[in-house]
Amino acid sequence: MTKTTVPNATIKRLPIYYRYFQFLKDEGTQKVSSGELSEGVKIDSATIRRDFSYLGALGKRGYGYDVDELVAFFKKLLNQDKRTNVALVGVGNLGNALLNYNFARTNNVRIAAAFDIDQSIVGTVKSGVPVYDVSELKEQLDLQQIDVCILTVSSNAAQVTANLLADAGVKGILNFTPVIINVPNNIRVHYVDLANELQTLIFFLDRDKSLNEDEE
Amino acid sequence: MTKTTVPNATIKRLPIYYRYFQFLKDEGTQKVSSGELSEGVKIDSATIRRDFSYLGALGKRGYGYDVDELVAFFKKLLNQDKRTNVALVGVGNLGNALLNYNFARTNNVRIAAAFDIDQSIVGTVKSGVPVYDVSELKEQLDLQQIDVCILTVSSNAAQVTANLLADAGVKGILNFTPVIINVPNNIRVHYVDLANELQTLIFFLDRDKSLNEDEE
Repeated sequence: MTKTTVPNATIKRLPIYYRYFQFLKDEGTQKVSSGELSEGVKIDSATIRRDFSYLGALGKRGYGYDVDELVAFFKKLLNQDKRTNVALVGVGNLGNALLNYNFARTNNVRIAAAFDIDQSIVGTVKSGVPVYDVSELKEQLDLQQIDVCILTVSSNAAQVTANLLADAGVKGILNFTPVIINVPNNIRVHYVDLANELQTLIFFLDRDKSLNEDEE
Repeated sequence: MTKTTVPNATIKRLPIYYRYFQFLKDEGTQKVSSGELSEGVKIDSATIRRDFSYLGALGKRGYGYDVDELVAFFKKLLNQDKRTNVALVGVGNLGNALLNYNFARTNNVRIAAAFDIDQSIVGTVKSGVPVYDVSELKEQLDLQQIDVCILTVSSNAAQVTANLLADAGVKGILNFTPVIINVPNNIRVHYVDLANELQTLIFFLDRDKSLNEDEE
């Protein structure tokens, strides 16, 4: 399989390319030059060329990229034809926001079930998604064939919930808690740490400022 | 300045190190081995050694890391002594979730002002944060000396709001919309694309699965 040689950094950029070509298609644009592509996705041309070289020849020299062709290519690559149901555990503020958001822009991912321990919301439907008691986790995930979960519980519940997810046979966790969770190696954990993102941005800005001051 | 030579990838990991040492300190742990550190932050030892080498010698051979010392070091490095106020533009579901969240875990970042165009919430206080009309953006940011904004407006309002932020003299934008925004080069934009994170996780899982199938 050629897929195995595609670097992780390239994989992380695939949805960005896909989204941009989809955007161009929606706009009615039929072809795009490599310069326009680079400007549009804010990724330098050399990186794009390298990324695309892993995926096979996608553009024609002197012509640029055919938008329809590229949309179809990335759609297939990213399994956009296949619907993936995911679950969300922890229906607090962030959980509710994600339920409402529900990845509507993507055609292929949908939060199909939510879990909480708060009996005042268990049994209700939030933004179209039923909320189950955490005790029903394994049963519902099996029933609905879900193996990806979004973790939006509070920090102090993160590890114990991660244990439940591991027991339920989950294969992937998108962890929004700031806690580094321990799970068996066969489970993929991706971290989205909102405070971290903001702190990093501020750190870069402070550094930019002190560099400018040094130059003055 | 030595700071200028620290790679961006290292900078992005600094808050992770800081948080982990703070966690150990809260727990009452006084020292940690490099192996425990690697396990705790889920970053391989070679990378940690390289990161730390950019920051100066932080550990003693055969001893490991002194937790109190490292907390103090990263706190200073990350300007945790200094409070940074930021603003949030777009008080929808995600905006509300972030206002409630308000980066409470970090001591140094706080959302101090929120902006929206919806007159039914302008003038109210959400999770302790006053909501202003977007027309007051420049005035309030000047007044409150805020130069970092979190962008949580809808996709179709992203670019026009980004223009307003640029006009208001903002230096950094944490963009939660899926839209790639165009702003002057002196403004830093970091992207947090929630759908992208989920899609990438699912893509990795699908790849893991097909690799396992190949092996069988």
